[in-house]
Amino acid sequence: MRNFDSFFRERLDDLKAEGRYRTFADLERIAGRFPRALYRSAPDASPREVTVWCSNDYLGMGQHPALAAAMHGSIEKSGAGAGGTRNISGTSHEIVQLERELAAFHGKEAGLAFTSGYISNEAALGTLAKHMPEAIVFSDALNHASMIAGIRNSRCEYQVFRHNDAAHLRQLLEAAAPHRPKIVAFESVYSMDGDIAPLKDLLDVCEQFNALTYLDEVHAVGLYGPTGAGIAEREGLAHRFHVIEGTLGKAFGLIGGYITGSAPLVDFVRSFAPGFIFTTALPPSVAAGARASLKVIRGAADLRTRHQAIAADLKARLLAAGLPVMPSESHIVPVKVGDPKACRRVAAILLEQHGIYVQPINYPTVPKGTERLRLTPTPLHDEAEVAALIAALSSVWRELSLPIAA
Amino acid sequence: MRNFDSFFRERLDDLKAEGRYRTFADLERIAGRFPRALYRSAPDASPREVTVWCSNDYLGMGQHPALAAAMHGSIEKSGAGAGGTRNISGTSHEIVQLERELAAFHGKEAGLAFTSGYISNEAALGTLAKHMPEAIVFSDALNHASMIAGIRNSRCEYQVFRHNDAAHLRQLLEAAAPHRPKIVAFESVYSMDGDIAPLKDLLDVCEQFNALTYLDEVHAVGLYGPTGAGIAEREGLAHRFHVIEGTLGKAFGLIGGYITGSAPLVDFVRSFAPGFIFTTALPPSVAAGARASLKVIRGAADLRTRHQAIAADLKARLLAAGLPVMPSESHIVPVKVGDPKACRRVAAILLEQHGIYVQPINYPTVPKGTERLRLTPTPLHDEAEVAALIAALSSVWRELSLPIAA
Ligand SMILES: Cc1ncc(COP(=O)(O)O)c(C=O)c1O
Ligand SMILES: Cc1ncc(COP(=O)(O)O)c(C=O)c1O
Repeated sequence: MRNFDSFFRERLDDLKAEGRYRTFADLERIAGRFPRALYRSAPDASPREVTVWCSNDYLGMGQHPALAAAMHGSIEKSGAGAGGTRNISGTSHEIVQLERELAAFHGKEAGLAFTSGYISNEAALGTLAKHMPEAIVFSDALNHASMIAGIRNSRCEYQVFRHNDAAHLRQLLEAAAPHRPKIVAFESVYSMDGDIAPLKDLLDVCEQFNALTYLDEVHAVGLYGPTGAGIAEREGLAHRFHVIEGTLGKAFGLIGGYITGSAPLVDFVRSFAPGFIFTTALPPSVAAGARASLKVIRGAADLRTRHQAIAADLKARLLAAGLPVMPSESHIVPVKVGDPKACRRVAAILLEQHGIYVQPINYPTVPKGTERLRLTPTPLHDEAEVAALIAALSSVWRELSLPIAA
Repeated sequence: MRNFDSFFRERLDDLKAEGRYRTFADLERIAGRFPRALYRSAPDASPREVTVWCSNDYLGMGQHPALAAAMHGSIEKSGAGAGGTRNISGTSHEIVQLERELAAFHGKEAGLAFTSGYISNEAALGTLAKHMPEAIVFSDALNHASMIAGIRNSRCEYQVFRHNDAAHLRQLLEAAAPHRPKIVAFESVYSMDGDIAPLKDLLDVCEQFNALTYLDEVHAVGLYGPTGAGIAEREGLAHRFHVIEGTLGKAFGLIGGYITGSAPLVDFVRSFAPGFIFTTALPPSVAAGARASLKVIRGAADLRTRHQAIAADLKARLLAAGLPVMPSESHIVPVKVGDPKACRRVAAILLEQHGIYVQPINYPTVPKGTERLRLTPTPLHDEAEVAALIAALSSVWRELSLPIAA
């Protein structure tokens, strides 16, 4: 047997040398006590309680009793899994209803659920780009890996426009042959910087050139807009997008992804996307849980207000403490470290000495030189936890003499 | 807004004209009473009870009380979702343990869980092929869409060998430059024909040419081998494969997928595969359920024996009734119709008039002219259900004057 392992080891050693090798924190979240969790330094080590400061369960929906009740009920009623692909015995009544409710949530005709947000982007964008003859995709420079995967795998022509730059997008659209179908893809909230796309400017340009508009609201659904349907809802623009994509894995507190759009568009993706067709469907209990989550979310304006308030408060207090908060317009609070090894070290000290868990974010997730801690305050973090975080960060920053410019 | 919808509609109309348009059956499985389910002809229609004859929950694990108990317990303990990607707060203690147990199950050093079997193939095979310089992939002609996606998306060179043909594989390997890394990918049980790959012959050839061997046991895990680890276990060959891939969505009764292999190989995929890295992790409750399922499966030799017995019995009785059972060496029992519209019609009559649900399988899932019903008997189908199936099929075959040659 040829020694492939030595090749794999070398590549892993390279990652380690660059400080890019990832170690995962082994966590046991504590339902009813989010953001607290049990942390183990090794699978057999005894657990220690920590505060999680980097969860994407932004509202703590994962521990909501309505969600749990819906899941319990569905498991008792229909069992654990779907039992098949959507086409071959895997379409549960729960998922049919979920898709209708997600469509209504975004004011669209139809919805389609996928096993993840990743696969929803890969499959939907990939299928649209591949099957529309001569399509060109225009993709924001900071688009998520899952959209990039869909675009690249479609093998269609694509162009990258400067992040959030409607003028640059216009230039590119203008230069493209008018008869070619155009697909423009971007996010609303960018999860590593916490900035928000100028949806109206981008839409205006897209419409001028008759482009199909694809919006990823993964870090916004549940969190923005009167009913939590995202930034497009907040700005009254949802009806102008052809596709709004979201996840059930972040603010919804579960797993899964979806698209919403016109009935023919959704049916087209349903009918042609291998990543949708050839895979076991989401369990009915996940669909039931997501429906319960959606119901709570639609009425959770107060929770959203508190969420924004705690994020604003955290930013202000980090700034006041002289810590390098990076500019952010959303609930995401990045604190710059600027070096991969230092970033790792900060996180290790926070975890080991302060009982605070925040994962270091290094290249290639963010550009080199902008390595950071990405804090995600939730309405469940209390005053004592916020104060402890700021004290711990201040102490680590002094201890390691880290830069204080963002 | 440009009218993209008319384009989508035309393409959908083409599908309809070819009899290839898929309609999903809206089902509500009844825990404790599998394979019975409630079927609705429209989301708001009142439900009717049917017998499901095409589920991939091959052993009915989806309704096993141990699975349900593990999921309930985990939801109460840790909440609904993982809350993040594996790297960013989403690594639950349950998933860490599950990965160790899956590795042990297949006699490998390490395991890695994915959100689905589809993504485990796409991500693992794609990453290996992409990152091994000058790699060539040799892929069985009937490999599943998810393996093909991984291979194509890696953009490496690949060659297709005739289905289950070790001699052809040898020719191709022989013709390839000796210094180039070679990856050979195939399945053990092929899900549409129910045939089983000649693992030993294929392995012998692969080893002669120092190829990395990638085996998809999606339709075999839980079902074959003394502990249910698959065909490779049954034939004492598991240790000779570099990668054994499986799903948690079929015989495990849940959702998710995994690979097992050497520690460096698994760490390599973990570190480089976008489809693993950039997506929310499986919920702790799914991991907990999968662990419970694995525990049951390892000791379920009796259930496996009954499963094979009912499949053999069904084949014999279909043959005796003069129905065109296609040759199959496994638990999968395909019955040939040979025409897409007739296939659809048979299934519709079975569902509407006989309360039997079996999805028609048409091109492109199977070659044109081999359209079929794909029956998956489970140990939960009782004598009355088997008798009803055979009577119904016989009646429909007569009614539509369908061919009786397989
Ligand atoms: C912008 C964006 N889109 C899509 C995804 C994928 O969603 P999911 O985690 O549901 O796979 C993520 C993160 O995981 C993301 O950040
Ligand atoms: C051979 C094979 N591999 C992989 C998969 C994908 O597994 P999953 O359903 O877990 O995505 C399937 C079917 O869905 C399959 O038939």
